[in-house]
Amino acid sequence: MHILVIGAAGMIGRKLAQRLAQDGALMERDITALTLADVVPADAPAGFAGKVSIETLDLSEPEAANRMIASRPDVIFHLAAIVSGEAELDFEKGYKINLDGTRHLFEAIRIAHMADGYRPRLVFTSSIAIAGAPLPFPIPDDFHATPLTSYGTQKAICELLLSDYSRKGYFDGLGIRLPTICIRPGKPNKAASGFFSNILREPLVGQEAVLPVSEDLRHWHASPRSAVGFLMHGAIIDLERVGPRRNLSMPGLSATVGEQIEALRRIAGDKAVRLIRREPDEMIMRICAGWPSGFEATRARALGFTAESSFDEIIRVHIEDELGGTL
Amino acid sequence: MHILVIGAAGMIGRKLAQRLAQDGALMERDITALTLADVVPADAPAGFAGKVSIETLDLSEPEAANRMIASRPDVIFHLAAIVSGEAELDFEKGYKINLDGTRHLFEAIRIAHMADGYRPRLVFTSSIAIAGAPLPFPIPDDFHATPLTSYGTQKAICELLLSDYSRKGYFDGLGIRLPTICIRPGKPNKAASGFFSNILREPLVGQEAVLPVSEDLRHWHASPRSAVGFLMHGAIIDLERVGPRRNLSMPGLSATVGEQIEALRRIAGDKAVRLIRREPDEMIMRICAGWPSGFEATRARALGFTAESSFDEIIRVHIEDELGGTL
Repeated sequence: MHILVIGAAGMIGRKLAQRLAQDGALMERDITALTLADVVPADAPAGFAGKVSIETLDLSEPEAANRMIASRPDVIFHLAAIVSGEAELDFEKGYKINLDGTRHLFEAIRIAHMADGYRPRLVFTSSIAIAGAPLPFPIPDDFHATPLTSYGTQKAICELLLSDYSRKGYFDGLGIRLPTICIRPGKPNKAASGFFSNILREPLVGQEAVLPVSEDLRHWHASPRSAVGFLMHGAIIDLERVGPRRNLSMPGLSATVGEQIEALRRIAGDKAVRLIRREPDEMIMRICAGWPSGFEATRARALGFTAESSFDEIIRVHIEDELGGTL
Repeated sequence: MHILVIGAAGMIGRKLAQRLAQDGALMERDITALTLADVVPADAPAGFAGKVSIETLDLSEPEAANRMIASRPDVIFHLAAIVSGEAELDFEKGYKINLDGTRHLFEAIRIAHMADGYRPRLVFTSSIAIAGAPLPFPIPDDFHATPLTSYGTQKAICELLLSDYSRKGYFDGLGIRLPTICIRPGKPNKAASGFFSNILREPLVGQEAVLPVSEDLRHWHASPRSAVGFLMHGAIIDLERVGPRRNLSMPGLSATVGEQIEALRRIAGDKAVRLIRREPDEMIMRICAGWPSGFEATRARALGFTAESSFDEIIRVHIEDELGGTL
């Protein structure tokens, strides 16, 4: 079987490609080809026996989608997007890539479907950004989408398109609303949510990190490993069981910043916790106040999606996957 | 002040233009100009002292929106859409008109806003078609959009765009989710929902009508006069009170077909009721089973939107507005 990953150069995309290469099969069918598409060249994953194609393209150009599906991949993971902050600063670019880019992909598949019956499985990464304050806690599965960012609006629109194209039978779509991914590997970035990862990742390797919010801020997390697990499960799940409502809030861990810090203390001791420097930032606090604290994720759990149940576990995943298993 | 009605040749559009002409003012500001746009030439309303411009155009062409807003109307009512059945049969046309057409309008306003600060009030007609079974009764304001038609999907997407463009300050938008309009004037049409009006309108003038569903089917109704009232109220309401969630389920009357028939009996007697011919239609029954039975409409009611509270009242509105006041 042939798998296409769009957004393969991103953090989750890379991990997904690596997992697909390592597993070598999906639903007991061998993965014979992997196409890795992104705006920059994605890395070919190590240890994959099949054929790897690297596609460098701009999803917002209609021809890009045709190129990606020309070889009729059986499963498409669509992870490509510009991030929330950039979509907010550049309104046109956000709509062009996050909405039009996705729509070009959906349209290319529809036209192929009309021509030759092509009907791939399509797993799309949506986001908790479709939710905007005021929000209940936990947020039930049937709560309305009330995005307060253009990024969240674009994701919510793509969810609606995904359901409609799936209902019409053009592809078999599933939308996966990812929690905030924690601990993000790599360097601290400027995303307003960056500190959730920074305050664990940096102290774990003996470096300082800044905490701009209060310890009672509650948020919704899952590890990068869980995110890849959601996508893999979304690719094999029986869609008859999902029904017409194709967008699922994924399970995750609802935790306060204080609970994150206590997990860090249990795993890496007081010396790690002492590396967290409090620098309250009014702007970041205001942004965070609009974010969800947690979801019920009843449907996704019933459908077999699973995430971590403690921050200790999230930290251990990071140590195993990013730090070679030891501190 | 200058008012633009897009979709002015439709049933609600005509009534809205007539009401605007008759009132001659909005929020104590004189209406000096009316632009009536549609794909066919709209009729100029009688008795209007100001200037009327009739625009015949295809909203799906990007230039159409620029033409409509060139004279910078203060208030825009956007009612134009192809109907549910047509959008379901012609996927491309539905998205082209109901989604792209609306987006062209929003984009034209945004670009004008960037150029000269233009920021009109924009009242958009959405629909209960954003809801799809299984549904609670009544549907709370915070229930998610789960359309089961392309038309409903297109309306739900336009709602999200309207909120985002409003949040960014490009225009002051309000989305109005209309109930099924009953009693629709005119001739019986082929819409699956047509019978709700047919079984009252035809017997009121001594003609037979067909009832394809059972009398216990419950649905959500408002008169054409209420629909015009929602739009007028939406044009003057204080949007600070509405907040960022700009799409409102309008109030309406939840009633069974049996309750409709009993109201007809009270107003027009047994001889009118005897003109309803039962012809159960499995396909129409199946379609109707997916429709909402009623909404809480808590926010809209609190904001001063009002509708009929009995089917007797809905029938009397029809007699007054369409039959000259008497049977």
